[in-house]
Amino acid sequence: MNNKALVVFSGGQDSTTCLFWALKEFGEVETVCFDYGQRHRIELEAARKIAETAGVPFTLLQMDLLKQITHNSLTDNSMDVDESKPDNTPPNTLVEGRNMLFLTFAAIFAKGKNIPNLVTGVGQADYSGYPDCRDEFIRSLNQTLNLSMDFNFTIHTPMMWKSKQDIWAMADQLGVFDLMRTQTVTCYNGIIGDGCGHCPACRLRKIGLDGYLKRH
Amino acid sequence: MNNKALVVFSGGQDSTTCLFWALKEFGEVETVCFDYGQRHRIELEAARKIAETAGVPFTLLQMDLLKQITHNSLTDNSMDVDESKPDNTPPNTLVEGRNMLFLTFAAIFAKGKNIPNLVTGVGQADYSGYPDCRDEFIRSLNQTLNLSMDFNFTIHTPMMWKSKQDIWAMADQLGVFDLMRTQTVTCYNGIIGDGCGHCPACRLRKIGLDGYLKRH
Repeated sequence: MNNKALVVFSGGQDSTTCLFWALKEFGEVETVCFDYGQRHRIELEAARKIAETAGVPFTLLQMDLLKQITHNSLTDNSMDVDESKPDNTPPNTLVEGRNMLFLTFAAIFAKGKNIPNLVTGVGQADYSGYPDCRDEFIRSLNQTLNLSMDFNFTIHTPMMWKSKQDIWAMADQLGVFDLMRTQTVTCYNGIIGDGCGHCPACRLRKIGLDGYLKRH
Repeated sequence: MNNKALVVFSGGQDSTTCLFWALKEFGEVETVCFDYGQRHRIELEAARKIAETAGVPFTLLQMDLLKQITHNSLTDNSMDVDESKPDNTPPNTLVEGRNMLFLTFAAIFAKGKNIPNLVTGVGQADYSGYPDCRDEFIRSLNQTLNLSMDFNFTIHTPMMWKSKQDIWAMADQLGVFDLMRTQTVTCYNGIIGDGCGHCPACRLRKIGLDGYLKRH
């Protein structure tokens, strides 16, 4: 059986937990990371270091086009990141089509290396108005990718139904709680570890961490 | 009703016919064309000219990443284009994931302009071992795109079940037979109009044209 996996990796909390989960589940693991002009470019360096610590190959792919055709606060430095989101509208950190492009490019790369397993850290707890984090989307994408390239990919989403608190627990079980706490980047303002503390991503991270620490 | 359409345009026979079909079907039409490092770059200039003739906006998008992660004779000038393909294996002109990426980037671009209709010239007569020309793939992709971006795209494939001969007939009905004959690029060797005559794409084109001319 082909036991190779490719992790779509960002150096954030979710994909880092995915990486260590994959190392337990699969025989051979490598990572692919996308530079799409994101404002928090420190995450690319963080990702490279974490991959090095984990001892897995790391490939950085340049995806310039996305920035040219979307308008959002993650790739456009002239916009401020939404501090709180009104009603049910997606926050201005939404990068349209991002997960679809990441997984499609990852799949093309993976097929070239005969890697059938794709691992992504997306999840519905993460949904926050992002349609491309939903299970329904991932299942549909899996089928479309297989039809597109006549290949049997399986997309694995170990974080799909996990809360941020669950993800801290999982990192702890995998023996990487300290690495997660100090080396991952969650913050929309690009501050490593516990971050700026006030952007939506930091607030979600802190609620999860506090919840997990209280449980223990 | 929103009557805007975006044509994924290459300046080839199929997408040119699609463009003139779309002009009849929709109220507002524009085109998007991809520069992905293809060897026959003359098609980009041909596409721009045809869009100008048709009087529709033309946007050229640079998609550099595909070339970095795939190995095929259309983007790698050190490889020869297969003259005939062995058995059922796809020819070395296959660019893995190409139509999926074209349509995904086109959809992101279209959503930003509130354009719900996407038009592509892919077809099963064109299949030639290309999985991403199949109807089954396009239907799956349509669903995945809609889930990805919470938007109601409709992908139109007017060429899906048409032979090359039918496409010549359609161009004639649309009043663009001469434009098709002289301005489109089909040839893998990048020769405008009737092409080099011996690559697989020219041979298919010639069979279709001869068939249509014989019928008239």
